[in-house]
Amino acid sequence: MKIVVALGGNAILQRGEEGSAEEQFAHVTSAVARLVDLVSRGETILITHGNGPQVGDILLKNECAAETLPRMPLDVCGAESQGMIGYMLQQCMENALRARGIERSVISIITQTRVNPLDPAFSHPSKPIGPFFTREEADAHVREQGWSMHETGGGDARFRRVVPSPEPLDIIEHSSIGALSDEGFIVIAAGGGGIPVYRTAEGALRGIEAVVDKDLAAEKLATGIGADILLILTDVPGVYLHYRTPEQRLLADVTVQDVCTWLAEDRFAEGSMAPKMRACMRFVEGGGQKAIITSLDLVDQALEGTVGTRIIR
Amino acid sequence: MKIVVALGGNAILQRGEEGSAEEQFAHVTSAVARLVDLVSRGETILITHGNGPQVGDILLKNECAAETLPRMPLDVCGAESQGMIGYMLQQCMENALRARGIERSVISIITQTRVNPLDPAFSHPSKPIGPFFTREEADAHVREQGWSMHETGGGDARFRRVVPSPEPLDIIEHSSIGALSDEGFIVIAAGGGGIPVYRTAEGALRGIEAVVDKDLAAEKLATGIGADILLILTDVPGVYLHYRTPEQRLLADVTVQDVCTWLAEDRFAEGSMAPKMRACMRFVEGGGQKAIITSLDLVDQALEGTVGTRIIR
Repeated sequence: MKIVVALGGNAILQRGEEGSAEEQFAHVTSAVARLVDLVSRGETILITHGNGPQVGDILLKNECAAETLPRMPLDVCGAESQGMIGYMLQQCMENALRARGIERSVISIITQTRVNPLDPAFSHPSKPIGPFFTREEADAHVREQGWSMHETGGGDARFRRVVPSPEPLDIIEHSSIGALSDEGFIVIAAGGGGIPVYRTAEGALRGIEAVVDKDLAAEKLATGIGADILLILTDVPGVYLHYRTPEQRLLADVTVQDVCTWLAEDRFAEGSMAPKMRACMRFVEGGGQKAIITSLDLVDQALEGTVGTRIIR
Repeated sequence: MKIVVALGGNAILQRGEEGSAEEQFAHVTSAVARLVDLVSRGETILITHGNGPQVGDILLKNECAAETLPRMPLDVCGAESQGMIGYMLQQCMENALRARGIERSVISIITQTRVNPLDPAFSHPSKPIGPFFTREEADAHVREQGWSMHETGGGDARFRRVVPSPEPLDIIEHSSIGALSDEGFIVIAAGGGGIPVYRTAEGALRGIEAVVDKDLAAEKLATGIGADILLILTDVPGVYLHYRTPEQRLLADVTVQDVCTWLAEDRFAEGSMAPKMRACMRFVEGGGQKAIITSLDLVDQALEGTVGTRIIR
């Protein structure tokens, strides 16, 4: 089976942690142990991953150095995070495979995701990103960098930059990635949803200030390469309906039609389960066999069908 | 012909410039125009690149944010720079190919370079890297981070961190890179000399605080994949003997034996032409057809043999 595994950025760097390289390597080592189990059972896996905490740190570093060095745009920051996380995943995966006596090459591919520059998301930036600012700092960023800022909860520093999160149209490198996977490489690709790019009127690729949802990009990758299963790994066992209400219920096998109805009724939180469910629905509609949402430690049982939320036709 | 092209970091970001993404994309666009000429003539090229200015900026950003965020070690910073520069090269190369009607996939591979943790370089850190510090700051880094610091020219902030620059032993991903190149991909790999790693007693890969010379790593890559030509591109037309003396003379065709003698006599500057000449000598000794050192704008003539310094058997 060809499985695209989407790892949450929190599987690598967790909130409340310092974020040191040691911590990140430790988390990645735990994460890949589960994935090596899949490889040892003969599954073909491709790994994609979030980059929220890491790109947040990269943006904060850009901000701290802004008096001396130009800020890098979001496409370049995303590329940096792919290098960093790809390296950690690749090295830990190679070590885990070697320790189990499995001979497989792991390869991280810098990946661009094409978006439509006329996507309505560009006139409604909604994805909070990077550090928190005071009102004065936020006003300065609006004036000087033309950023959109969003006011959050309490505290002095309660403004954050919001950026567009357009729909992914396709993964520029999907044929290369599919070919490498078919040849036996364990491919790491489309990290952080891929580097957001668009095509100019002349057909050239250009980076654009945006972030692409990593689960929606994972779906494009999975569909593009003809994967059998899209496996979205998060920090809960599955998807709940009526989450945090007395009627809360963990979903097991659900059809694309169910998911479509629930999404239309706004049953899932945007920025959380909604894009994951949307990715799963699209994957199965696009010809995928099934999509699964579960946590990293339940991967085996979820593939057997005993836990997790599975979206089928 | 299979040609490994080693681009200097200065082909992407030049000293004295601000270092904005726009500037870097502009330089990369000019650089790849020359390389597309090679592709259009039917040559198989693999691209490797320096990362000095870029990793310098990444380290400076780490320093500016050090009160809030943990510093990333050099292996992780190198991986970030591979993501960033790989993205820029890949996108500009794809655009240039498309504009010329050439159908080829470009792919950037995160690459690790294995070094020996007992390399004498680890007891003699010699490669200056990152920002300049005052004596007080330098002393604090020695105390708190255990860094080695080196005093440079004048000014208040005249101390820089020096790090080990061990010999590259091999490119971990060289078989994958070679296979991809053989299949027609234009591969970008081993950026910044590759991410420095070593093998533990158990055989696991681990990052290490070091930087690998990008030309020496390019040689390991070129030899590892059986390239015909190693093409080292820098900002001068070729290599001079008796550089900046009245007897200065531009070298044209030279043998590995000549190079060996000159290197033994310390005729070339370490940190400049010496490692390039060493890389060329090793490449030809290791079975390569010829190695060329020239500037980006002279690539075509250098391959025809009319300009540049060519190292042959």
